[in-house]
Amino acid sequence: MTKTAAIIGGGVIGGGWAARFALNGWTVQVFDPDPEAERKIGEVMANARRSLPGLTDVALPDEGEVRFCASIAEAVTGADWIQESVPERLEIKHKTFAEVQAHCAADAVIGSSTSGFKPSQLQQGAARPGQIMVAHPFNPVYLLPLVELVPGDAGDPALIEQAKTLLSGIGMYALHLKKEIDAHVADRFLEAVWREALWLVKDGIATTEEIDNAIRYGFGIRWAQMGLFETYRVAGGEAGMKHFMAQFGPCLSWPWTKLMDVPEFTDELVDLIAGQSDAQSGDLSIRELERVRDNNLVTMMRGLKAQDWGAGALLNQQEVLMRQGTEMGARAADLPADQPVPTARRTVPLDWTDYNGHMTESRYLHAFADATDRFMELIGCDAAYISSGGSYFTAETHIRHLDEVHAGAVITITTRVVLGEGKKMHLFHEMREGDRLLATGEHFLLHVDLETRKPSPPSPQIEANLVRFAQGHAQLPAPDGLGRAIGAPR
Amino acid sequence: MTKTAAIIGGGVIGGGWAARFALNGWTVQVFDPDPEAERKIGEVMANARRSLPGLTDVALPDEGEVRFCASIAEAVTGADWIQESVPERLEIKHKTFAEVQAHCAADAVIGSSTSGFKPSQLQQGAARPGQIMVAHPFNPVYLLPLVELVPGDAGDPALIEQAKTLLSGIGMYALHLKKEIDAHVADRFLEAVWREALWLVKDGIATTEEIDNAIRYGFGIRWAQMGLFETYRVAGGEAGMKHFMAQFGPCLSWPWTKLMDVPEFTDELVDLIAGQSDAQSGDLSIRELERVRDNNLVTMMRGLKAQDWGAGALLNQQEVLMRQGTEMGARAADLPADQPVPTARRTVPLDWTDYNGHMTESRYLHAFADATDRFMELIGCDAAYISSGGSYFTAETHIRHLDEVHAGAVITITTRVVLGEGKKMHLFHEMREGDRLLATGEHFLLHVDLETRKPSPPSPQIEANLVRFAQGHAQLPAPDGLGRAIGAPR
Repeated sequence: MTKTAAIIGGGVIGGGWAARFALNGWTVQVFDPDPEAERKIGEVMANARRSLPGLTDVALPDEGEVRFCASIAEAVTGADWIQESVPERLEIKHKTFAEVQAHCAADAVIGSSTSGFKPSQLQQGAARPGQIMVAHPFNPVYLLPLVELVPGDAGDPALIEQAKTLLSGIGMYALHLKKEIDAHVADRFLEAVWREALWLVKDGIATTEEIDNAIRYGFGIRWAQMGLFETYRVAGGEAGMKHFMAQFGPCLSWPWTKLMDVPEFTDELVDLIAGQSDAQSGDLSIRELERVRDNNLVTMMRGLKAQDWGAGALLNQQEVLMRQGTEMGARAADLPADQPVPTARRTVPLDWTDYNGHMTESRYLHAFADATDRFMELIGCDAAYISSGGSYFTAETHIRHLDEVHAGAVITITTRVVLGEGKKMHLFHEMREGDRLLATGEHFLLHVDLETRKPSPPSPQIEANLVRFAQGHAQLPAPDGLGRAIGAPR
Repeated sequence: MTKTAAIIGGGVIGGGWAARFALNGWTVQVFDPDPEAERKIGEVMANARRSLPGLTDVALPDEGEVRFCASIAEAVTGADWIQESVPERLEIKHKTFAEVQAHCAADAVIGSSTSGFKPSQLQQGAARPGQIMVAHPFNPVYLLPLVELVPGDAGDPALIEQAKTLLSGIGMYALHLKKEIDAHVADRFLEAVWREALWLVKDGIATTEEIDNAIRYGFGIRWAQMGLFETYRVAGGEAGMKHFMAQFGPCLSWPWTKLMDVPEFTDELVDLIAGQSDAQSGDLSIRELERVRDNNLVTMMRGLKAQDWGAGALLNQQEVLMRQGTEMGARAADLPADQPVPTARRTVPLDWTDYNGHMTESRYLHAFADATDRFMELIGCDAAYISSGGSYFTAETHIRHLDEVHAGAVITITTRVVLGEGKKMHLFHEMREGDRLLATGEHFLLHVDLETRKPSPPSPQIEANLVRFAQGHAQLPAPDGLGRAIGAPR
């Protein structure tokens, strides 16, 4: 059943939440008195549509409707999740929660995007304090999975579990903090680094660009995958974490940083930083920088996905949920043998395009190979079978590139078996965007013994499944392009 | 001419430097009195050989020799770069530099891996103070490009420029700090975050795993590509950096973090952190974690390389240098037309393998497509030509997968023109590891007008270059597999 989210307060953060929910198929009801809200949220949604759908290797559900409402009462009606992203002033938050709780369901989650307030502060004077929790996301909300979920002592345990489940469903990760603390966790680190960075600029040690390079060419890219402690655990080597701490611990009392001194926030300092930032990044507009950032995040997260690690492992977990109840989660017996088999439904990721502006040729084969993997899984050559020592290796491939396709397009692949007997498997894939045929991929594979790396017969069950499809597909007319050689007359 | 690096002090950092130099073709002379030094450096070298060579799309030069020396005098003889990574005690550093300067060339760079000392401290009492500079790298040194280069007031300007050039040549980025400061720049940030993280664990707010997740699922992956200021510039939106600072500036005086209080370094705290770290990461050995980390870094850096951004843009800059003077930098006129054209010499990257343990099928096409790009560049269809509105699109591809290949292998591709006339280009690639034929790729391409997306004739110069190779290659015997269709008899 379609779920509904209420977004109270738009802007970059509220818009990011709206995009996250809508692109995952939720109905979204927005309340924001700003006359510019629809435009602003629309811009965030456009960025999200460009980058989020291609993160996973299965397509997201159909995008949900986004409705702009005239009141909080209207926005929260029927909502399963209400996300507050109003300005960071406690009296505004309290007034908003009172209005929300007067009209929303008692079993809906009310999340606050606040970075500055603790849940106990938010809950003061509330009709149902246990319903209100901090759900603090990170920009861009539509790509980054982290949500700091802080329910405070008053939090309702059942609602907390519900919040975690709902967040997983939209590809987010709830970091459930059991004790409340000022600024939660991540922003405390950001404050520390920001403060030190301001001193370095003010004291003329380094420019904004030099500081950014000191981060992104060094520890920044390390932290993208392991964070702080696991990185140091590795650095400590075989001697382990205790050894590392013995080495690095004493440094803590050295007077390195100016941590607690706060630089005076003068016009001069603001001008210095703004000027250096212009010199560093001014050749690109903010919109261009957003697209660069999102391209980078997508390619790194997809890279980590293939490694099944960090933010990429979260994407794989989300995909398992996404497959449930769709063709991409079906079993062989559920699929008719007299029709081509649906083996892919995915969105072309941002990082699959090339200098010609379209999906690059090797990604056609990437998509076909994934479709082959899905077909193998269907007939029983799945991860468990492969780890038991059998698999299929591709011996020969023929691709016809018939039309262009661009990042963000939803492509589908259907597969038919041309030949399936003994160790031989001959497949013919057709890739489409809607009805438009984009490419065909013809593949000859051999079942192999992974020990000897030599051809061998598959398990009887795999062969039986394969033969069933081969016999069914033999009834279909031969597809255009089958058995074609390059240079042969058309 | 082969350059020589002296590595004084092995371990993880010295070993990382040794690997960086050797894999970039330098001769490396190591001095380390530790009887385990050769084993330890060997382990770091093995990790580096696994991960570094595939980062770029051209192969590194042949690996340089690594020699273990009996004295500092022997190690620094003939060295262009001397890197000191001895323990962090000033009297040991001073003694080391005295011995180094007694035997090394006066125009060699002496870099120190120190994180704790300023160059003015290192230079005290030195024979030639201007020769000694901080060159502080980040672990793993063989993958991360950042080097904080701090020469201090005594630094020799010519030697500083030389140091930057040499570091670029081994794929590193010299962040030249003009003023010296305790802990340079990056470690000041690390100290701030580490200190705050210890408090969060000690106070029971979050575990080591929760803190790592708070970093890597949120700001960590942002910082991997843009650092701190550029990220905030984007967050500020169209209103710009001044607006962002006006919003976030006042938070600085809020009493969020425990920055300057140093948590007492008790056995209890060490045990707490070591125990949480075991629970978080203990299912993988340090060696396994190192490999996970390196896989992740490689895939993220290669993703950023395709976006030409951050650490990936540095790889592209390095590649320009690497192509110079090799076949991969040759011009069409320099290559004989009666021989297949060398179009690739690259190392299979870590992230090109699949669940079968070998290079996955779509990466064969990736490598062939890059070889096609190189051939296009050779005949004049380069980036400038493409931006003027013409390019080639692949219409049809046939690949024979003849043998397996694994990450780390150096593969070469040679290309011959089967047909090159008018808008048509028919290429046949052969991929080899050494003499072993791995695959052939046959491709039919059409020259297109990028405005109309329709076939069109190429420039006369491109056609002339293409015809020259087509005529030359027509003299060669037809390659095995040319014009083959899947399912045809062999």
